[in-house]
Amino acid sequence: MIDLALVGIGAGAPGHLTLDGIAALNRADVVLVPDKGAEKGELAAVRLRLCAAVLTNPATRIVTVAVPRRAADDPDYAGAVDRWHDAVAAAWGAAIAAALPDGGRVATMVWGDPALYDSTLRIAGRLKATIDLAVTVIPGITALQALTAAHRIPLAEIGAPVLVTTGRRLAERGWPADADTVAVMLDGASAFRALDPADLRIWWGAYLGMPAEILVAGPLAEVAHEILARRTAARAANGWIMDTYLLRRTAAG
Amino acid sequence: MIDLALVGIGAGAPGHLTLDGIAALNRADVVLVPDKGAEKGELAAVRLRLCAAVLTNPATRIVTVAVPRRAADDPDYAGAVDRWHDAVAAAWGAAIAAALPDGGRVATMVWGDPALYDSTLRIAGRLKATIDLAVTVIPGITALQALTAAHRIPLAEIGAPVLVTTGRRLAERGWPADADTVAVMLDGASAFRALDPADLRIWWGAYLGMPAEILVAGPLAEVAHEILARRTAARAANGWIMDTYLLRRTAAG
Repeated sequence: MIDLALVGIGAGAPGHLTLDGIAALNRADVVLVPDKGAEKGELAAVRLRLCAAVLTNPATRIVTVAVPRRAADDPDYAGAVDRWHDAVAAAWGAAIAAALPDGGRVATMVWGDPALYDSTLRIAGRLKATIDLAVTVIPGITALQALTAAHRIPLAEIGAPVLVTTGRRLAERGWPADADTVAVMLDGASAFRALDPADLRIWWGAYLGMPAEILVAGPLAEVAHEILARRTAARAANGWIMDTYLLRRTAAG
Repeated sequence: MIDLALVGIGAGAPGHLTLDGIAALNRADVVLVPDKGAEKGELAAVRLRLCAAVLTNPATRIVTVAVPRRAADDPDYAGAVDRWHDAVAAAWGAAIAAALPDGGRVATMVWGDPALYDSTLRIAGRLKATIDLAVTVIPGITALQALTAAHRIPLAEIGAPVLVTTGRRLAERGWPADADTVAVMLDGASAFRALDPADLRIWWGAYLGMPAEILVAGPLAEVAHEILARRTAARAANGWIMDTYLLRRTAAG
């Protein structure tokens, strides 16, 4: 029997860790740290530093798992994600079986919150096919929350809705009918460029909660170029970037 | 000069507190605890217990502020909220001036996250008219995150959008065009009753993260009555209720 805790660790700042998250890490026999290869090595390093900062249980072991990467250029996005989840679940299953052949407690650290655009819950679901598994989820601060906190803005207008979506979807469908506020995640291609910027204001942030944090806000027509330039430069300088943004239609409502 | 930290404390569980939130409370000269009167006295008590559990700075004072309540039956919802924010800002300003006439650090505890359907950021904005004020926001776990964690479900489908909205808005506008997942907050009237339940699944939770937590999930057509009955009974037993839910259209996509 394996108890698997999916621990949301927040957007990168050690201060985003919750008391529940710290307790779950310290209850674990094994903390599984996925390693997606050199390009994202810095992210694995951040996780290891967070772990080191809060682990006080000397019996907890840290086990690094090399996980396959998703085929980024597969035109069948849903199919590629599905096959990738299978492959990651197989890698995790092997690592857990090797580390805890008689069962025990496993924790894994998830960026942001395990509920929001993260694969870990679905991977855990696949693991249940081969492992007797009980899953616990510890929510964590998402990049969107770090973004609104850093900009000191509400996510929603008073009583109004917010559409949380992905860059891919925003580029495909354009501005939604149901909301004047759109929060965009997983946007590797700066989908805001595809929008008519009239009446749109943007609050953008990268490396939120980390020392390299960058914030830009203003009318989209005025700051889009600055965001694109700073994004390109920061990605080149750091080798990777995680960014997110909020768009608000200001003339409406 | 007043430094005001708006500390998101999560959905009720002490374990939702973040390291940043605990640090901000302990940096404060004064923690302002709003008291909305007897009906919500239990909520003020939960805040005071959280404070007591994590405050280690003996110099930090806890100051309770009686705040006016919003006129719940005013048909001009936006106007009523606006006037209420003015009145709360006046009460806070008086309490801060009395407690820290020479300036200092104030923290206040906000349910969930200050960015999501909370008034505190807007009240702080009004305070700036009369106080030299610097605001810091500490994000916190929202009831939606506690809900998805408790049910062990993703908020969004893979790459798909989520509309976060209020019960009032869902009742007025019906199911949105842009999302197959709708997360509903601030719903005192169980707006899901107004929807055609066909193809809809609901994950509902009340008192999330608290000992009284209740969870119900299933096809909306099958569990709507159970949710209404349990909500009514729990509200009567406890004198108050906070609940939230996620709806997903399961036949689409």
